[in-house]
Amino acid sequence: MVGSGVEVSINGSLTNGISAKHLTALDEESFDPTAVVAEPVPEVVESNGDGEKDKREIVLGRNVHTTCLEVTEPDADDESTGDKDAYMASVLSRYRKTLLERTKHHLGYPYNLDFDYGALGQLQHFSINNLGDPFIESNYGVHSRQFEVGVLDWFARLWEIEKSDYWGYITNCGTEGNLHGILVGREVFPDGILYASKESHYSVFKAARMYRMECIKIATLITGEIDCADFKTKLLPNKDKPAILNVNIGTTVKGAVDDLDLVIQTLEECGYSHDRFYIHCDGALFGLMMPFVKRAPKVTFKKPIGSVSVSGHKFVGCPMPCGVQLTRIQHINALSRNVEYLASRDATIMGSRNGHAPIFLWYTLNRKGYKGFQKEVQKCLINAHYLKDQLRGAGISAMLNELSSTVVFERPKDEEFVRRWQLACEGNMAHIIVMPNVTIEKLDYFLNELVKERSTWYSDEKIQPPCLAADIGRDNCSCALHT
Amino acid sequence: MVGSGVEVSINGSLTNGISAKHLTALDEESFDPTAVVAEPVPEVVESNGDGEKDKREIVLGRNVHTTCLEVTEPDADDESTGDKDAYMASVLSRYRKTLLERTKHHLGYPYNLDFDYGALGQLQHFSINNLGDPFIESNYGVHSRQFEVGVLDWFARLWEIEKSDYWGYITNCGTEGNLHGILVGREVFPDGILYASKESHYSVFKAARMYRMECIKIATLITGEIDCADFKTKLLPNKDKPAILNVNIGTTVKGAVDDLDLVIQTLEECGYSHDRFYIHCDGALFGLMMPFVKRAPKVTFKKPIGSVSVSGHKFVGCPMPCGVQLTRIQHINALSRNVEYLASRDATIMGSRNGHAPIFLWYTLNRKGYKGFQKEVQKCLINAHYLKDQLRGAGISAMLNELSSTVVFERPKDEEFVRRWQLACEGNMAHIIVMPNVTIEKLDYFLNELVKERSTWYSDEKIQPPCLAADIGRDNCSCALHT
Repeated sequence: MVGSGVEVSINGSLTNGISAKHLTALDEESFDPTAVVAEPVPEVVESNGDGEKDKREIVLGRNVHTTCLEVTEPDADDESTGDKDAYMASVLSRYRKTLLERTKHHLGYPYNLDFDYGALGQLQHFSINNLGDPFIESNYGVHSRQFEVGVLDWFARLWEIEKSDYWGYITNCGTEGNLHGILVGREVFPDGILYASKESHYSVFKAARMYRMECIKIATLITGEIDCADFKTKLLPNKDKPAILNVNIGTTVKGAVDDLDLVIQTLEECGYSHDRFYIHCDGALFGLMMPFVKRAPKVTFKKPIGSVSVSGHKFVGCPMPCGVQLTRIQHINALSRNVEYLASRDATIMGSRNGHAPIFLWYTLNRKGYKGFQKEVQKCLINAHYLKDQLRGAGISAMLNELSSTVVFERPKDEEFVRRWQLACEGNMAHIIVMPNVTIEKLDYFLNELVKERSTWYSDEKIQPPCLAADIGRDNCSCALHT
Repeated sequence: MVGSGVEVSINGSLTNGISAKHLTALDEESFDPTAVVAEPVPEVVESNGDGEKDKREIVLGRNVHTTCLEVTEPDADDESTGDKDAYMASVLSRYRKTLLERTKHHLGYPYNLDFDYGALGQLQHFSINNLGDPFIESNYGVHSRQFEVGVLDWFARLWEIEKSDYWGYITNCGTEGNLHGILVGREVFPDGILYASKESHYSVFKAARMYRMECIKIATLITGEIDCADFKTKLLPNKDKPAILNVNIGTTVKGAVDDLDLVIQTLEECGYSHDRFYIHCDGALFGLMMPFVKRAPKVTFKKPIGSVSVSGHKFVGCPMPCGVQLTRIQHINALSRNVEYLASRDATIMGSRNGHAPIFLWYTLNRKGYKGFQKEVQKCLINAHYLKDQLRGAGISAMLNELSSTVVFERPKDEEFVRRWQLACEGNMAHIIVMPNVTIEKLDYFLNELVKERSTWYSDEKIQPPCLAADIGRDNCSCALHT
């Protein structure tokens, strides 16, 4: 142990950092911490017999192992031959081609793939890390807090909260925003019950399990919105406990926007005063779109909400997932009052945080501005209407929520077609999310292909397109029964 | 509501996605979802009077607001004048200069700032997202799972577990690895108690609060290692409950490596069979270094451990934080058996995951190989010894754990000096983590500056350097009393 006075000669100098325990184990042979193992390349671990293996359940797919790019040990002469560099360059070049092709055929996920961050390439050489809190500078100097806070201020203005009244940070993704918002809610109301519509993002229910919270699922309308009648029924028997609510500003599958005002009204009607509930708004995609749409129910901190999160790689577009999380500073102050409580120097979920993401966001927000985003929102909604109209015109079941750019339609019968266009599916539904990079030309290209291929899927009259009445309503269904 | 048969003319086409509720609210005026708000630029929210403000506690620093880079709305003529582009280019150029300078003067954090990912610049144009599980392909095609699994396999070989026996993923940072490892432990033993030495990373205690787990802190030796005598004392009265352990492979402040074998032995001595405990190894920095050091206590899945995590931006080096998390597939299978249980399509913490990070790691692992890392580890340990010897030679208190490249020494008196060199400090201690990018030249530059400035800090005999005996042991202390 250090302090025991043991002194051993290491590399000709005296050192005191040796533990007596280790010395004994080494039979008083001098320990050289700089000595390395003789063979650094580990053996490949082999199976210990197949008997065990047969019994093993394979729950998670292992298919990626068959296509994965193995990391190989460099040969001794790689530097002179350049073989390794050539191999890697060829892998990357092929990969880039795949990315180009996959980016071109992409319609199903809410990612704006249209961005040009060429000007930021110069920053890739730096290890930028916004350790911990955005508002507390750490000693690590290679950070981008000045950009991060600029971005947060922009969102604070969008969601109508004073600079000195909010706290927030740039997260790694929408899920982290939800994990944070619900955690803040739980810390404000430790015995609160979490309520969320059943069409909420799966991270909301993951949070409930992680945080060991009681969670009650609420039914939804056919649009995908929370059913406030059902909410009321489930609130009333639990009036003795505070309510923590997840409100969806755009659900994952149908892009439905929960009616925030009706949710608040329901809480009030059930006798909940404003200090007995906490609302987290999951604005993953639409949190940035709604403010620009006339008459959309407004997400604003002027209403009694606790937090809002939005993804940065969705409507804004970013090379990697990221998000924005804003909450009221009083909630964070309450948590931070007792440092032991969060056992942390900060109130974020992650300790180390990607410092590049805020710069990407800052760059786009500066270039586009509120007005630029409004134009893009308008374009998306117009194109989404176009897509929905064309689908219905071609006799294909389809629905578009009024505040949404998510077009839900009949799931294509051919899985290869689904994969090719990277459509997200659930049951008989598929959806396309019309993002700023989705042009009318791209939609036409898709529609032509769909209509053509679909005619072959259903050329045999015995095979009929599925009925979607239960999913999207009779009026939106074009099946044989409902046309 | 959809399905109610309401049809309203929108943009000349028929639509059915209108909720009756909204129609009523709008007095039967037709709702145009593509109509935008007249003034998209939100008002700046003003304070509602100063009385409130005086009462507000400012717990978290707000200083970053004074230096932050505001996002500004583009002017109408920006495109023609190019003013905005010029402004942003100048901001970025200044920022790049700061990063260069800050990267040059960096010694306190365990980040390897020496990397060249120029060949990967071509990928920055893509929104690469490894949604969910690395082994389950989603329909989103712009991913990098083939690289991710290659990297995981490399670590599986390092930590001696068969490909078909492990599950893992590339995380956003070391904290996510700890959050995941401890969550898996809790799901394996829902009533388990979490044990962690008091010098464990703060994310471990954050996890305990998040997950509502009972957590017991264990004392440490002066080296920073877990004190297994104290561990035993605290285990014995809790023998009725399973144990979940966080074992540090390199503590944050002192770089101390907990003795994994002694920890397991202690558990066994206290009567814990292997199916009554779960060990998570937090290998943030040293998890990748230890395997290459002769006689270092081996981190391997051949021992009864449940998971290992390591950071990717630390020893490997990466532009943004990331990490690797590996666990046994049977634990993940147990979780996934009931999908409702995790309420998730995957067993990661985050849903969307940065697809660039695995490519950075894959690139470096391929270039360096196990042998390359061994060389770097050796260089770091030699340089760390050099630094420690030079400090002691100059009469400055300093300690270096035998398996570590973290040199703990007397905290410099001048905070400006601490900031300039980005040293992490705790109480009277500062530390330098000797990473591959820290050369002898850089250390000499630092040492010369320290020795010179220190002579001015203590030129007045009335002011004495602090005593560090309680922090790093009497033998390592060079204060007036212990020299």
